[in-house]
Amino acid sequence: MTDVHYHDYLQLDKILNAQELESNKHNASAHDEMLFIIIHQAYELWFKQLHHEADSVVAIMRKPSLNDNSPELQTVVHRLNRIATILRVLVHQIDIMETMTPMDFLDFRDMLRPASGFQSWQFKLLEAKLGLKFEYRHGQEYYTSQLRQQHIDLIKAAENGQSFLQLMNTWLERMPFSPAPPPPKGGSSEAQSQLLENTAINKKTPKSEVSEQVSPPSGEPEGAWDFWSEYKEAYSNSLAEAEKNNLDFFNEVFFQQRETHYTLSAKANRAALFIMLYRGYPMLQQPFQLLNSVLEIDEQLSTWRHRHINMVHRMIGTRIGTGGSSGKNYLKAAADKHYIFKEVAQLTSFLIERRKLPQLPKEVEKKLGFASSSPLPPGGGT
Amino acid sequence: MTDVHYHDYLQLDKILNAQELESNKHNASAHDEMLFIIIHQAYELWFKQLHHEADSVVAIMRKPSLNDNSPELQTVVHRLNRIATILRVLVHQIDIMETMTPMDFLDFRDMLRPASGFQSWQFKLLEAKLGLKFEYRHGQEYYTSQLRQQHIDLIKAAENGQSFLQLMNTWLERMPFSPAPPPPKGGSSEAQSQLLENTAINKKTPKSEVSEQVSPPSGEPEGAWDFWSEYKEAYSNSLAEAEKNNLDFFNEVFFQQRETHYTLSAKANRAALFIMLYRGYPMLQQPFQLLNSVLEIDEQLSTWRHRHINMVHRMIGTRIGTGGSSGKNYLKAAADKHYIFKEVAQLTSFLIERRKLPQLPKEVEKKLGFASSSPLPPGGGT
Amino acid sequence: MTDVHYHDYLQLDKILNAQELESNKHNASAHDEMLFIIIHQAYELWFKQLHHEADSVVAIMRKPSLNDNSPELQTVVHRLNRIATILRVLVHQIDIMETMTPMDFLDFRDMLRPASGFQSWQFKLLEAKLGLKFEYRHGQEYYTSQLRQQHIDLIKAAENGQSFLQLMNTWLERMPFSPAPPPPKGGSSEAQSQLLENTAINKKTPKSEVSEQVSPPSGEPEGAWDFWSEYKEAYSNSLAEAEKNNLDFFNEVFFQQRETHYTLSAKANRAALFIMLYRGYPMLQQPFQLLNSVLEIDEQLSTWRHRHINMVHRMIGTRIGTGGSSGKNYLKAAADKHYIFKEVAQLTSFLIERRKLPQLPKEVEKKLGFASSSPLPPGGGT
Amino acid sequence: MTDVHYHDYLQLDKILNAQELESNKHNASAHDEMLFIIIHQAYELWFKQLHHEADSVVAIMRKPSLNDNSPELQTVVHRLNRIATILRVLVHQIDIMETMTPMDFLDFRDMLRPASGFQSWQFKLLEAKLGLKFEYRHGQEYYTSQLRQQHIDLIKAAENGQSFLQLMNTWLERMPFSPAPPPPKGGSSEAQSQLLENTAINKKTPKSEVSEQVSPPSGEPEGAWDFWSEYKEAYSNSLAEAEKNNLDFFNEVFFQQRETHYTLSAKANRAALFIMLYRGYPMLQQPFQLLNSVLEIDEQLSTWRHRHINMVHRMIGTRIGTGGSSGKNYLKAAADKHYIFKEVAQLTSFLIERRKLPQLPKEVEKKLGFASSSPLPPGGGT
Repeated sequence: MTDVHYHDYLQLDKILNAQELESNKHNASAHDEMLFIIIHQAYELWFKQLHHEADSVVAIMRKPSLNDNSPELQTVVHRLNRIATILRVLVHQIDIMETMTPMDFLDFRDMLRPASGFQSWQFKLLEAKLGLKFEYRHGQEYYTSQLRQQHIDLIKAAENGQSFLQLMNTWLERMPFSPAPPPPKGGSSEAQSQLLENTAINKKTPKSEVSEQVSPPSGEPEGAWDFWSEYKEAYSNSLAEAEKNNLDFFNEVFFQQRETHYTLSAKANRAALFIMLYRGYPMLQQPFQLLNSVLEIDEQLSTWRHRHINMVHRMIGTRIGTGGSSGKNYLKAAADKHYIFKEVAQLTSFLIERRKLPQLPKEVEKKLGFASSSPLPPGGGT
Repeated sequence: MTDVHYHDYLQLDKILNAQELESNKHNASAHDEMLFIIIHQAYELWFKQLHHEADSVVAIMRKPSLNDNSPELQTVVHRLNRIATILRVLVHQIDIMETMTPMDFLDFRDMLRPASGFQSWQFKLLEAKLGLKFEYRHGQEYYTSQLRQQHIDLIKAAENGQSFLQLMNTWLERMPFSPAPPPPKGGSSEAQSQLLENTAINKKTPKSEVSEQVSPPSGEPEGAWDFWSEYKEAYSNSLAEAEKNNLDFFNEVFFQQRETHYTLSAKANRAALFIMLYRGYPMLQQPFQLLNSVLEIDEQLSTWRHRHINMVHRMIGTRIGTGGSSGKNYLKAAADKHYIFKEVAQLTSFLIERRKLPQLPKEVEKKLGFASSSPLPPGGGT
Repeated sequence: MTDVHYHDYLQLDKILNAQELESNKHNASAHDEMLFIIIHQAYELWFKQLHHEADSVVAIMRKPSLNDNSPELQTVVHRLNRIATILRVLVHQIDIMETMTPMDFLDFRDMLRPASGFQSWQFKLLEAKLGLKFEYRHGQEYYTSQLRQQHIDLIKAAENGQSFLQLMNTWLERMPFSPAPPPPKGGSSEAQSQLLENTAINKKTPKSEVSEQVSPPSGEPEGAWDFWSEYKEAYSNSLAEAEKNNLDFFNEVFFQQRETHYTLSAKANRAALFIMLYRGYPMLQQPFQLLNSVLEIDEQLSTWRHRHINMVHRMIGTRIGTGGSSGKNYLKAAADKHYIFKEVAQLTSFLIERRKLPQLPKEVEKKLGFASSSPLPPGGGT
Repeated sequence: MTDVHYHDYLQLDKILNAQELESNKHNASAHDEMLFIIIHQAYELWFKQLHHEADSVVAIMRKPSLNDNSPELQTVVHRLNRIATILRVLVHQIDIMETMTPMDFLDFRDMLRPASGFQSWQFKLLEAKLGLKFEYRHGQEYYTSQLRQQHIDLIKAAENGQSFLQLMNTWLERMPFSPAPPPPKGGSSEAQSQLLENTAINKKTPKSEVSEQVSPPSGEPEGAWDFWSEYKEAYSNSLAEAEKNNLDFFNEVFFQQRETHYTLSAKANRAALFIMLYRGYPMLQQPFQLLNSVLEIDEQLSTWRHRHINMVHRMIGTRIGTGGSSGKNYLKAAADKHYIFKEVAQLTSFLIERRKLPQLPKEVEKKLGFASSSPLPPGGGT
């Protein structure tokens, strides 16, 4: 094995010779163009790393036998947290961009047309992999309008494949711990309601996939214990007068989902809420951390978009961007809309006080990791 | 002189004994309530410091003789930067709050009703001092609805007094360097147009104050040099086809202001743009830093509001806040609206490339701090 | 139940009226003294919160039956992470202090003598609670020389009580999973060596406590499986020529501990290393996170001390501090010495590559949380 | 002019295809090696940007006619601040590296030998450009021992050329405002003492350069006003009993410099102190900001080194680094020694209270930017 040298290993000859200033070509050298190039290259390098992490996480989540207390789930949580850590640095990095004043940007801005950050396919691809669907994009056709076909194809493939969000939905659905829904009133069969509630995110999924996901024996035990009726009662009691219509929302989210825009099925939502409520149990600790991680990622993405908007506004005001976008307005609308995991975030609305939580039956507690000997306060832990 | 002891000097007996948990009173001790109290106290302590800085800055700006290259203007810039630095830490501090999970908050949330962050009068007072007017507040009457009269009075007094923004307007108007507007076409007298353009922020100001500000000889030299016609021409040429209506906006902002919602007068806007364009000149360096500082403050306030929204959403979802607010929606609307210095930010839209800037006459250059011997590239500097 | 108001709940009348400037008393009002007071009050508020967390964590760790996969251990990890998050903000907060220039500090510095940050008993008490012993303090008698007796008493009590570090040692010792040490060569009985290796941190602990900790049946199984001989062999093979003396260090840390300065016993070190090596197993996930958290806390404390030193140096240079300290040098020596969890950090030296890890016997794997059906790569996970 | 596309402009084909994992070549794919490569590439990209800024700043400082209130000095300050901003992000970026656990690093660590961060020539070159001399490096020959000849040559050239620190020394020496030193006692001629005190940093500089720098008429006015005797008196009075030997230090730093290790001459030190004391005057505002910026850069470099040490320690403990270094100890010694601007930092030791500052003569005040009409409190400003 030959020796490795830092300079070669990092291919620094490539990396450090990949900055060619347009302003030099125009014989109007602009000092700050170097910063402009390098910061974007640094962003793209980190985007590549985010893809590396996202791809590995998706690959693990795709395994049918993923155990909720396995090293693999631990790995998923660890890498999601790394994604959040990287995003935090990318937000901070905007500070550097902001040392470029608008006048300094004007020195070379026109030379870049029509190049634009809108042509960063890696970021859009990342959103797609994580779970942002085409139909939820602001200004749908617009966002790929400036990309090359090869990159559009990558994004389309990601949008048509199973995103992390979809895989998380499937994983939540097969949670072996979450209680079954209340028995249907009237005569509709359990099978029907099961089918109904599994469909959310898969409404456009080909038959074969659906059946694969539905056919395994449901994780929800079929026992007589009616957790959800009990919980719904407790939730209803917790609502202030002005909040009473939250109950309809509760039914919608956890049982009916008459709308088609949900990305998490009713069943997945029930599992996710159950995890949040009883996270103290060993078997729910990793799943709870996973849910927390995706919220943290969404928050960092949101903060990134927010600071990006402010930065663009400070840099070009109401001028039209180099890529022809009207700048702030597009970004603003996209930022308000592109919360990938917003359905997880909204589950907070359905929590109740710990001391009012239904007590779990012994056999459920046991499955969740505590022998009967261990006295656990309901929903204990932090 | 008696010795000073750290513990007494900081009055730690008061500070460290000011945490009384409601959950303890209810015999339902909630561990995280201590965090909830202490983080809010830390915020309020820092708000007091922000007031200390804002008050001192307002006091300096109120002096009629404030020189643009004086140690006092330097002090203003220094303290505005300190305000931004503090705000940056306050944004970061949200990370600590986010270690409190929604379930942990629920343990004591109901015991606090109707206390709420909406009752933080210091923050609202700060916004008012900096320049947020009652009429620009989202949900106007609402924001003071839960405050005590003494605190409402403080806010009203600030809203009716001269805010930092107004004082900045006045200071910009009396800038001794900025060129006069183009001569009026037709027969309207210079005096009239002067009167017109000074009025923006003072539309509701009592006569006496207006006349005080208008009567001193205008800082804008009355020479034959017509900077603004020249600049407007250059700006117009810089516009892409799709941006052509920016020219109307240009006229509106710098000369007409037919609307009444402006907080900066046309004259002040002209001075501010001139500062941005020619910031390389010694006399304009401090003024440029001042403009930069207020943008930084607005950005930090905006980021604070943004993260606050996400944090509240993560904590209570669509539940109603302890203060009865519908949470996220109110905060969102306020955040989108409450940019205090947005008229400064939008001036970026009217910059042009440095190499196309009008060359300043020698006598203007001299006033700006360079003897004719010193060869300065137009608009040089960074 | 009476209504709660934000202003009263937070006792803002106390908090916001606890700033009395010495410079005002001297009729030499110094603007920046307010900042000086408020930043120190904010630090002390947060120190109180850190104590709140540290106390709760110590209380949990003191329980004899703490299960390694319990909600309580999860709570410990969560709160340790919160401590790290708070420390991160406290480090950032130094940015604010640094907006005070040395000249501005001089305006009131002499009025504060002999008050000094050295009189912050809360920080010293926190170090003691976490595990910093009197004998490891730099300049031992010095650090309490300026404190009041009541605060010295608190610190002494903490130093003489069971610190978090000691409790962590005890908890590691009773880990039910870690393998037994290799059988003693020659005739020394197991009991003797057990006694020997449990003593580290307790060398000065009164008899009764020691016996309490030693007497329960050791967690290390007494089977024929000789993990440590196997591991030592693998470790030895991993060493480069220049590292060969690490093997002596290995023996010292995990088996002999002839020196008396250790804070973790050999047995605890073995458990901690085992956790690091096999963290992928469910039962070791929380313990691994706990070890990670204390390293993070130490790193933040270290960064805090480092930036504090730089800040003091920038502020007073080689002048003598208000408390009479020679400033930077004392702080520097203390910073280099006061790593509370350094023995955990150094365990990294004894890791080997995952693919060379000894394969665990089936019955051990089962205890660690995997049924034999689940195929686990040795030491899998992240 | 052809269109520019984001992907080509940033040469993303190069940038995103420059990651080749050694672990893949060994058929032992290690997930975290990608992170290891990308974070180092991101660091090197930013180092290139730091060089871009440092080079531009050095080029400006080299101009013989640099005016202290010019746009160019403003540009220098702006770019130094940008360097500090970038360094702050680079410090933060260590958070990402710390998501890699030691076990994950071990998966590919041995495959990289002998590559090592010690082979990062860009960082060493940056230190040299800023002013770190070979003779002040810890373990002198060692630090270039692993570099390639072409990179060693670059560093040697920078060490032998004029560093930013030397240029700052020259610039300080020619400050047209700072008062002359007290007249020499006894018969030594002014010319001699001038020669003496200019030599500090140039002790090894060839004759020709020295004479070039000394020959222009000194900026220090030769008038009868003896500022330094007055200031020394005031400083002496400000010293506490235990600080009395600071007076010798004062004489050494500002007048004698009998040692040869100084990087700033006595004359430069006097100018720098004068700037700190009277920073409120217009002509001293930019110079003061420049001094502040270099202190900020040194602090960020110091924090970077500090966190880097902790990170390395956490990652490899006392093992030997891939490059054969003994890791922490070398880094620690280097970190303690490599403060580039420490002589600026130590000037803080010689400040006195503002109200005891000598009043400047009218003609000096005038030169500093205030007409006699403007009443300035001595040393006013912040």
